[in-house]
Amino acid sequence: MKLISLFTLSFLLVSLSLFSQESKYPKQAPMKPEMSEYWTPQPKVVTPAQTPETILVAPSDAIVLFDGSDLSMWENSEGKPAEWTIGDGFFTVKKGKGIIKTKQLFNDFQLHIEWRIPEGIEGKSQGRGNSGVFLQGHYEIQILDCYQNETYVNGQTGSVYKQTPPLVNAMQKPGVWNTYDIIYNAPTFTKDGTYRTPPTVTVLQNGVLLQNHTTILGTTEYIGFPKVKEHGAGPIILQDHGDAVSFRNIWIREL
Amino acid sequence: MKLISLFTLSFLLVSLSLFSQESKYPKQAPMKPEMSEYWTPQPKVVTPAQTPETILVAPSDAIVLFDGSDLSMWENSEGKPAEWTIGDGFFTVKKGKGIIKTKQLFNDFQLHIEWRIPEGIEGKSQGRGNSGVFLQGHYEIQILDCYQNETYVNGQTGSVYKQTPPLVNAMQKPGVWNTYDIIYNAPTFTKDGTYRTPPTVTVLQNGVLLQNHTTILGTTEYIGFPKVKEHGAGPIILQDHGDAVSFRNIWIREL
Amino acid sequence: MKLISLFTLSFLLVSLSLFSQESKYPKQAPMKPEMSEYWTPQPKVVTPAQTPETILVAPSDAIVLFDGSDLSMWENSEGKPAEWTIGDGFFTVKKGKGIIKTKQLFNDFQLHIEWRIPEGIEGKSQGRGNSGVFLQGHYEIQILDCYQNETYVNGQTGSVYKQTPPLVNAMQKPGVWNTYDIIYNAPTFTKDGTYRTPPTVTVLQNGVLLQNHTTILGTTEYIGFPKVKEHGAGPIILQDHGDAVSFRNIWIREL
Amino acid sequence: MKLISLFTLSFLLVSLSLFSQESKYPKQAPMKPEMSEYWTPQPKVVTPAQTPETILVAPSDAIVLFDGSDLSMWENSEGKPAEWTIGDGFFTVKKGKGIIKTKQLFNDFQLHIEWRIPEGIEGKSQGRGNSGVFLQGHYEIQILDCYQNETYVNGQTGSVYKQTPPLVNAMQKPGVWNTYDIIYNAPTFTKDGTYRTPPTVTVLQNGVLLQNHTTILGTTEYIGFPKVKEHGAGPIILQDHGDAVSFRNIWIREL
Repeated sequence: MKLISLFTLSFLLVSLSLFSQESKYPKQAPMKPEMSEYWTPQPKVVTPAQTPETILVAPSDAIVLFDGSDLSMWENSEGKPAEWTIGDGFFTVKKGKGIIKTKQLFNDFQLHIEWRIPEGIEGKSQGRGNSGVFLQGHYEIQILDCYQNETYVNGQTGSVYKQTPPLVNAMQKPGVWNTYDIIYNAPTFTKDGTYRTPPTVTVLQNGVLLQNHTTILGTTEYIGFPKVKEHGAGPIILQDHGDAVSFRNIWIREL
Repeated sequence: MKLISLFTLSFLLVSLSLFSQESKYPKQAPMKPEMSEYWTPQPKVVTPAQTPETILVAPSDAIVLFDGSDLSMWENSEGKPAEWTIGDGFFTVKKGKGIIKTKQLFNDFQLHIEWRIPEGIEGKSQGRGNSGVFLQGHYEIQILDCYQNETYVNGQTGSVYKQTPPLVNAMQKPGVWNTYDIIYNAPTFTKDGTYRTPPTVTVLQNGVLLQNHTTILGTTEYIGFPKVKEHGAGPIILQDHGDAVSFRNIWIREL
Repeated sequence: MKLISLFTLSFLLVSLSLFSQESKYPKQAPMKPEMSEYWTPQPKVVTPAQTPETILVAPSDAIVLFDGSDLSMWENSEGKPAEWTIGDGFFTVKKGKGIIKTKQLFNDFQLHIEWRIPEGIEGKSQGRGNSGVFLQGHYEIQILDCYQNETYVNGQTGSVYKQTPPLVNAMQKPGVWNTYDIIYNAPTFTKDGTYRTPPTVTVLQNGVLLQNHTTILGTTEYIGFPKVKEHGAGPIILQDHGDAVSFRNIWIREL
Repeated sequence: MKLISLFTLSFLLVSLSLFSQESKYPKQAPMKPEMSEYWTPQPKVVTPAQTPETILVAPSDAIVLFDGSDLSMWENSEGKPAEWTIGDGFFTVKKGKGIIKTKQLFNDFQLHIEWRIPEGIEGKSQGRGNSGVFLQGHYEIQILDCYQNETYVNGQTGSVYKQTPPLVNAMQKPGVWNTYDIIYNAPTFTKDGTYRTPPTVTVLQNGVLLQNHTTILGTTEYIGFPKVKEHGAGPIILQDHGDAVSFRNIWIREL
């Protein structure tokens, strides 16, 4: 969700300048973030199987994005080395260092990623263990501590952020690793830059289905409606939202 | 678009009372109509073929909803006789009488309907020849005089109102009949009341494609985001927006 | 359907040589044409409106493929001038001259084409007024005299030939012009050459829906299963099946 | 694949009698099994992670179809007790006892099932470790020993049998447990009994994507083309193909 980074700021400026060229038309009225947040019905809570201690090796045709040792496959929003904190087989968001993104760009893929909310996390709603995975840099699958923590449903863990809530809430407790298995199909575009076929996503958290070939309506926008913007291959982005969320065992298979 | 009728009011009250039961959660912040209106890029203008003078008879398996003589297939929002004005082979919105809707309810269908903006129409943007066709009572295909009249693009003729603009602008001049050929597939629902398969619509105006199997995101809302609401078969509704739009040669084939 | 032309023969030879490279595997067992033909249930007969005498002009953004005068937009299977017979505002299949195809190649499109079975046609099943429209050169929408002439249903007029029967039978009598309005979306392909999104087609004959965003399973094959073959933009092909089917008023809009 | 059971025989007889009522039309020409089998291109071999020794518990909202102890959730084709062999935490096909199927019927679901080819299996192509999972009783996801054993690709493990090959071959060796995670959406039907929305399936084997929201074309047919047949909720069927394939840890979540 709310992406606080130079990357985002520069992007917004480009968008605004594009819009300002079309001055003869009324501007779309400005919105507030809470206008695109709704709270009911809350997804049912499902207790998943405990995540096994042993990390499974990646399939032989996968690109390993993090094998436990270093962030060489990642960079920050300015293309400089990623500066998040490396732990023992995992890495952790370093507050203030901004997002990190894969150097490699992807189209359709199957992504496996494991993440953990810090034990003893405090705060509530979106202020508790907040991060996210951006598909092709544009479409966020939310990460949040939703273990006994309610928030707007289209901002829950596993939501297509500010769009589609997850089918259920399948969180592990803080301090326990969660898995995401994400199957993503990139959009194709008409010559006018609208979706010819929209992006779609399937998400399993801890082996439980959260998104079932969900149509993504447009880019993740903190404020207002999703936008349809033409784009090509894009990176996986992990969000710095100021919380010490950790990640491990990340691999991707191009489809 | 803005449906001013008892039908709507009673419907809104039901919705509000449903929402008010869930008082422990924050309410979605109220929006303004202009927040869901955008003006660019304006669809390209295409000049269609002149509509033939002769009215084609309906296919033999169609249900004729208006054959030029009376409104016996229609009723007003309260289930009482439709009181719009009958002309010579057509009928016209009677301001203040509210919407009319088919007595019969439909699921999937092919709908043919012809409509005409009054010659000499004045006004601008949405205030010029405004009406609309509601599919299953929930999803509006906009009718508006868009001949040399710009408005927000997701409110143009042939838009899924407040959602998806038409591919092009294929208007006849005021005073000339337009045709709509609409192919609609009703949604199916999960047991939780969300779309299992969303509604889709294809629209041709004067033989020119405006909507190409477009996914409808939810109900037409004048204010705010589309909503997903479970429903069964529903009527065709024609909107009274205060303008003297006329209709003729209406038939429907159940698919 | 059965495309008898040098174009086809050369194409088949290429296919066979491709297959013969993979000699260590069993060959798919040869089939007979009638194995992919089924006769029931026969689509319901619907009487459409009479086609108006007046030809409607093409929309202003359409590419006119035949305006009544000459075949300059078309060529034969070898890229030489199309030699079918020009009539008074129409042209007719010239037996033995093979298919004709557009010089221009297309991706997604809306196609309007009118066609007529010769009055007094004789023969039965597929041997009566047989021709066809190939989308991107690969996927045939069948043309056949199905007026009081039964055939296998996936070979009827408006079928995706040898795949999907039309929803109904909406034929005009021999000697009367029929219209086809065809909305086609080209496939996209994975890097392995399979469909990422399959082709889809909507067909209206004489204003009546025959195919409703039907998924095309693969190339039209006279014998055996449809095949998935990677391809780019392709021509509209009209088939010479030996019958004197006529065509007029052909235009296409790129989507 | 080839279902040899009373269940099947009675089903075929019903089909034949239905067909024989329509005697005025030619019959679809009989086919041979090998006509719907193709061998190239062979899917790439991917080595998956080793399946963990520990069995994960089912999510809290799942219906457990086999917890390691008994077949009380299953019955044979005649509705009598399932007679397959119970082992230590798993069960095994008992040759000659025919299929087993769940007593409960399902619509849309997420299914987890683990299966093992017997160590030391011999034979080749389809004659080696053959079984299968039928979704709603109609659509088979193939089970076969494809570890260093080639067969026709639309008959491989993870194929929609006789329809769509898997994206890759992600087999464990014989004697090692495989996992299937299957997400299935049931078809909806038009009033004419054809698919309004076809069934779709996503399959992961050992965490590797084999089917990505694949459209199922019709029922699994050992001979000839898939068929579209109207049906409601249906059982999970496990196939007795004469090989001692074992199963464990089976659960299903209704969607």
